[in-house]
Amino acid sequence: RVDGRRLWASLMDLAAIGATPKGGVCRLALTDLDRQGRDLFVRWAEQAGCSVRVDGIGNIFARRAGTDPDRPAVMTGSHIDTQPTGGKFDGNYGVLAGLEVIRTLNAARVQTRAPIEVAVWTNEEGSRFTPVMMGSGVHAGAFTLAHALAQTDAEGVSVQQALQAIGYAGQAPTGAAGTVGAYFEAHIEQGPVLENHGKVVGVVTAALGQRWYNVRLTGMEAHAGPTPMELRKDALLVAARLVAEVNRIATVRAPHGRGTVGSLQVFPNSRNVIPGQVTMSVDLRAPDDVQLLAMDQDLRAVCERFAQQSGIAIDIEQVVSFPPQPFAPPLVESIRAHATDLGYSAMDVVSGAGHDAVYLARVAPTAMIFVPCADGISHNEIESAEPEHLEAGCNVLLRAMLAAAEI
Amino acid sequence: RVDGRRLWASLMDLAAIGATPKGGVCRLALTDLDRQGRDLFVRWAEQAGCSVRVDGIGNIFARRAGTDPDRPAVMTGSHIDTQPTGGKFDGNYGVLAGLEVIRTLNAARVQTRAPIEVAVWTNEEGSRFTPVMMGSGVHAGAFTLAHALAQTDAEGVSVQQALQAIGYAGQAPTGAAGTVGAYFEAHIEQGPVLENHGKVVGVVTAALGQRWYNVRLTGMEAHAGPTPMELRKDALLVAARLVAEVNRIATVRAPHGRGTVGSLQVFPNSRNVIPGQVTMSVDLRAPDDVQLLAMDQDLRAVCERFAQQSGIAIDIEQVVSFPPQPFAPPLVESIRAHATDLGYSAMDVVSGAGHDAVYLARVAPTAMIFVPCADGISHNEIESAEPEHLEAGCNVLLRAMLAAAEI
Ligand SMILES: NC(=O)NCCC(=O)O
Ligand SMILES: NC(=O)NCCC(=O)O
Repeated sequence: RVDGRRLWASLMDLAAIGATPKGGVCRLALTDLDRQGRDLFVRWAEQAGCSVRVDGIGNIFARRAGTDPDRPAVMTGSHIDTQPTGGKFDGNYGVLAGLEVIRTLNAARVQTRAPIEVAVWTNEEGSRFTPVMMGSGVHAGAFTLAHALAQTDAEGVSVQQALQAIGYAGQAPTGAAGTVGAYFEAHIEQGPVLENHGKVVGVVTAALGQRWYNVRLTGMEAHAGPTPMELRKDALLVAARLVAEVNRIATVRAPHGRGTVGSLQVFPNSRNVIPGQVTMSVDLRAPDDVQLLAMDQDLRAVCERFAQQSGIAIDIEQVVSFPPQPFAPPLVESIRAHATDLGYSAMDVVSGAGHDAVYLARVAPTAMIFVPCADGISHNEIESAEPEHLEAGCNVLLRAMLAAAEI
Repeated sequence: RVDGRRLWASLMDLAAIGATPKGGVCRLALTDLDRQGRDLFVRWAEQAGCSVRVDGIGNIFARRAGTDPDRPAVMTGSHIDTQPTGGKFDGNYGVLAGLEVIRTLNAARVQTRAPIEVAVWTNEEGSRFTPVMMGSGVHAGAFTLAHALAQTDAEGVSVQQALQAIGYAGQAPTGAAGTVGAYFEAHIEQGPVLENHGKVVGVVTAALGQRWYNVRLTGMEAHAGPTPMELRKDALLVAARLVAEVNRIATVRAPHGRGTVGSLQVFPNSRNVIPGQVTMSVDLRAPDDVQLLAMDQDLRAVCERFAQQSGIAIDIEQVVSFPPQPFAPPLVESIRAHATDLGYSAMDVVSGAGHDAVYLARVAPTAMIFVPCADGISHNEIESAEPEHLEAGCNVLLRAMLAAAEI
């Protein structure tokens, strides 16, 4: 079993780097604070006897050798960059749970046949540089290293420049070909399902597919007083109906359909002017392609119908797409079995959010372990998790990795 | 009959002061451009033989004497301040139509028993200083001179300072007691009704009452991916339903009920975050108190019901209120009769917007004459009106004023 207090102490040590007054962490990707966090991880990994390599996109791999040199690594990991007003656990937990696995194996003098690796993926959050999940995306070949290196932040600094500035433009080759035998990622749930069901371990069977859209509605600006209701072309009125439809489109696909309008802007946004234009985002998620495509078609049909009925022009543009990603059934089953074995209350869940594991699943058998976070709140300085829950998830991770790596 | 070309020429001369590249006018209240516009009007009025006085809030009154010194004035007027991206006609037309009436009477050497006055009301638009319709509001005793003088613009300049700076802090007493026998105001419609019906003259029977509200909806911010639909407290979803209800509340009160959400803000307004908070404006209008009160109660009942159903807190605060304002039936009938007499196509309309006439109606028999503006567009640099329509409205104004002032 892992040492829950050691895990917690490491989480708190890492959280000190970029700590915010409200108890959160601000450690944006490839900043000097990120360097300090990386340096701390590398020091800890080397103290634990690992060899450390860094690849061209700055992903860090800490390796504990196995007894069989021909075996691909059994890997775990996550990220240590945070949102601008992020918490102590999102990402950091998955990295330090991996380190705790290695420390536990060391303390117990356990040799595994396959090597064990802990990965720290570069820029998962996407706050400073887009796209999100950059390091794992390059690793999985979702986009090229050159594409990733050329991205710039709001100040015009490129990923390449930022990597060089903090000394993490590594020499190891990028890409996963044959190097990963199995990938596990432990993460806080970032949602309320486990807490709501009173469960400690979430057995993640899949990640929802995502489609993000920009929608623009164009009506006719007019004075709110002298314009009779029947002569209006109110873009906000139609946008409001679309918000309700996005909700319906997801709600009828319970329990895993999701539909969200997170962002909406009104023009000219003046009290006594009928809105002439509205722009809004739509975020649709579903566990399988059939549902996701049906939701996409439903959305487009609703837009077309509303445009015809109202005389409001509706433009819809898809801006992001992730296919649904099932995780590897044998690894999922292993997590489920070990959680039960260890006496933890567990339930199957899906990951509603994107994670590095979603990219890794494209190139290696992959599964995830969730633990609850308070009120399901994440991407927030008040993000909070119970030490016992973090320990529980780490024990399941240890068992599942041992099973995959073999003794 | 008035001289339509002289009226048009004066409109274009005045529009040169503060002219914008896009063909509009930017002449904010009590700026130096406003002074230039005022100076031009005063010069024209004096050239037309009028005596000019300025009151404590900067309202200008140009007076053509009558033959009976005991008669209160028959007054017309409007405003010459504009929106930041305003047009050539809103307000300016009413002032220069009044001047054209006086020029026409001079040319025809007509003596009236009652004096004729043309008023230029200070700060109708409310763009630089709130409240709107400031000069006519002081005149009608809606609020005190001291209250108006103390208002400040975004730079902290007070109305009093601005009046002194442009030399229009006048000595004439403010207030209407006994000075106005009848008030007429000619104005572009700022709406599409006349154009839609192919009519040239709008006989304005009343101005709609207005109630403006701020509404705040508070739900719970959460990650759009991991949060199932049934566990959400999505403030935007409930706000969207409220937008539809505001529309319904007005639409069932056809033809004159109005309900508009012109402004809406979403927090934190991020694509993959369920909105935790929404603020929005509501603007309700109706032709009588019974309807306006029913709309107010309908809105409050909907907010209460939605709050109970959704668990979203909804706060509603009324921020502006104007009671419905019927115009004086004899003056309305006079406008209707003269429009028909002159052979103009006319129809009864209500004023959906506030005007100086709405305050004047509290202290004197009042009526308004509307003429069409292109596409009903106003408060816009592309605001446009036909010379023949402006001439027609001015002819009706001339006849109605003559009838009230008696020869
Ligand atoms: N874990 C996470 O917050 N990913 C961001 C992308 C998403 O919205 O799923
Ligand atoms: N005429 C005009 O635009 N008044 C402003 C107040 C309103 O919205 O009615």
